Amino acid sequence: MNAAVDFSLDAWSQPRLQAVEAALSTWVTADTVPALGWGAPSGLVDTMRYAVLDGGKRLRPLLALAAYEAVNPEPGAQQPSAAALRAACAVELIHAYSLVHDDMPCMDNDVLRRGKPTVHVQFGEAAALLAGDALQALAFELLTPDDGSVPLAVQGRLCAVLARAAGSTGMAGGQAIDLASVGQSLDEQSLRHMHQLKTGALLKASVMLGAACGQASETAQRALADYGRALGLAFQVMDDVLDVTADSATLGKTAGKDADHDKPTYVSLMGLERSRRYAQELLEEAHTALAASGLANTAALAALADRVLHRNH
Amino acid sequence: MNAAVDFSLDAWSQPRLQAVEAALSTWVTADTVPALGWGAPSGLVDTMRYAVLDGGKRLRPLLALAAYEAVNPEPGAQQPSAAALRAACAVELIHAYSLVHDDMPCMDNDVLRRGKPTVHVQFGEAAALLAGDALQALAFELLTPDDGSVPLAVQGRLCAVLARAAGSTGMAGGQAIDLASVGQSLDEQSLRHMHQLKTGALLKASVMLGAACGQASETAQRALADYGRALGLAFQVMDDVLDVTADSATLGKTAGKDADHDKPTYVSLMGLERSRRYAQELLEEAHTALAASGLANTAALAALADRVLHRNH
Repeated sequence: MNAAVDFSLDAWSQPRLQAVEAALSTWVTADTVPALGWGAPSGLVDTMRYAVLDGGKRLRPLLALAAYEAVNPEPGAQQPSAAALRAACAVELIHAYSLVHDDMPCMDNDVLRRGKPTVHVQFGEAAALLAGDALQALAFELLTPDDGSVPLAVQGRLCAVLARAAGSTGMAGGQAIDLASVGQSLDEQSLRHMHQLKTGALLKASVMLGAACGQASETAQRALADYGRALGLAFQVMDDVLDVTADSATLGKTAGKDADHDKPTYVSLMGLERSRRYAQELLEEAHTALAASGLANTAALAALADRVLHRNH
Repeated sequence: MNAAVDFSLDAWSQPRLQAVEAALSTWVTADTVPALGWGAPSGLVDTMRYAVLDGGKRLRPLLALAAYEAVNPEPGAQQPSAAALRAACAVELIHAYSLVHDDMPCMDNDVLRRGKPTVHVQFGEAAALLAGDALQALAFELLTPDDGSVPLAVQGRLCAVLARAAGSTGMAGGQAIDLASVGQSLDEQSLRHMHQLKTGALLKASVMLGAACGQASETAQRALADYGRALGLAFQVMDDVLDVTADSATLGKTAGKDADHDKPTYVSLMGLERSRRYAQELLEEAHTALAASGLANTAALAALADRVLHRNH
């Protein structure tokens, strides 16, 4: 990890986060589409912007950009490529829509998210439902521009990866297992399977989308998939740890809600200390995968994995 | 329309409907994905299948297949091409998800659909929400197979068309306008705009997706877009007519609900007879567009337009 010694994740992240925020603000818009003669209705767009902008750690976009740069190093470049920026924002839109729907009364019935009222509290349930639906579609719109910035074949590949990570064998599938497991006792294997789908699939997809925007070798792709898988699981284990150790103000969402909802978690299954150790082991797996990737420019990916383990919210 | 004299829509539709039903049943599945080592959770898949299978007129898939065959005539072929079949099923999945979400208590709160209890009545609201979300993702999964049956560049193009038709400048946008217009009086232009988004965008996309699977000339594409636009609007005008003239048993859903919900409709705006005449004019526009397409094999598209006007449910 010598290459990472001089690497500042904050310095690396700052211009990229700015680019992601600016792009999201540009793309989640009511502007008229010339080919159609109309834009999205402003009420719907207001709801979508509330759900997406000014919030979140943007871990998934940063993973996508870091993976792209690992595969396509351009030393000194501070601004992401157009394709990678679209991939980064698309995966964030899927994440944002999932939070909107997950917070709804028929799901987790949560009222606080990123320190603000949740979307359905602010705009009503029907608006939240529609905004989530529209955000999912918008993710695929972002991946398929007609301006030539993303080659058509890459567009197809990106949509393939994102759709599978979002759908019934990915995020939505994991949420369905989560829903069915309330009040059940899951063993470690079942809990891991649920999280691989619910959170892991989209985190891994973030990495793979970034890689797909560049020209990753088979070896690099396999290693990045291993990295994404380990990071995704570490993220969820730490989420469970933070749910019991952090307060709502730090989390920006209701703390202790998993335990309150009688949901199985790593902490309920293996206790706090063993959960922390497990997250540490997964972090080491992620670093090992990067070392095996044959890629030189993995400092950002390595630092993002470290931050997943050491975050406090 | 001489070519249409000997054309039987029923005979044309029958093998194609069988192919669509079989494909939907195959693709909405809990089967293990070899690359993942797992499949979609069976409870989620049961809900998705309930929402998709054994119901619906499959107008959108038939439009996609008819447009493909107009562009790519293979006389005597009874089975659709793999790409066109995927496009046909993908657009139906988007339609099916929209019905699931639209029926939910926070939206139309409907309990009857295609003569069966709606999805949230049968499986609960959370399951309905997740199944709808997963069906939207599955539509994009269908368009992006890794088996070589759809060229990567065509995959990108198909995803672009479908995402825009489903999203905030298409179906979801139209539903948002619909939601905001309850109890409002819309003028004809605003009502048309709402329907162009809410139903028209996806019907037009059905046609354009089929065309995109073939090699449509610019002229043919423009004409097919005009056909799709006129047909989409005619469909909605007739939907409003049927809402007041048909009974629930024939419709397979609750009749009179738009009037009950104080929603603006063509019938409330222009009366029953003028609505019927308007639908007839739109049908003629659709036929004119087909004649201008330069395509020879448009009998199925012509017959589908006729059926939209003369359907009783």
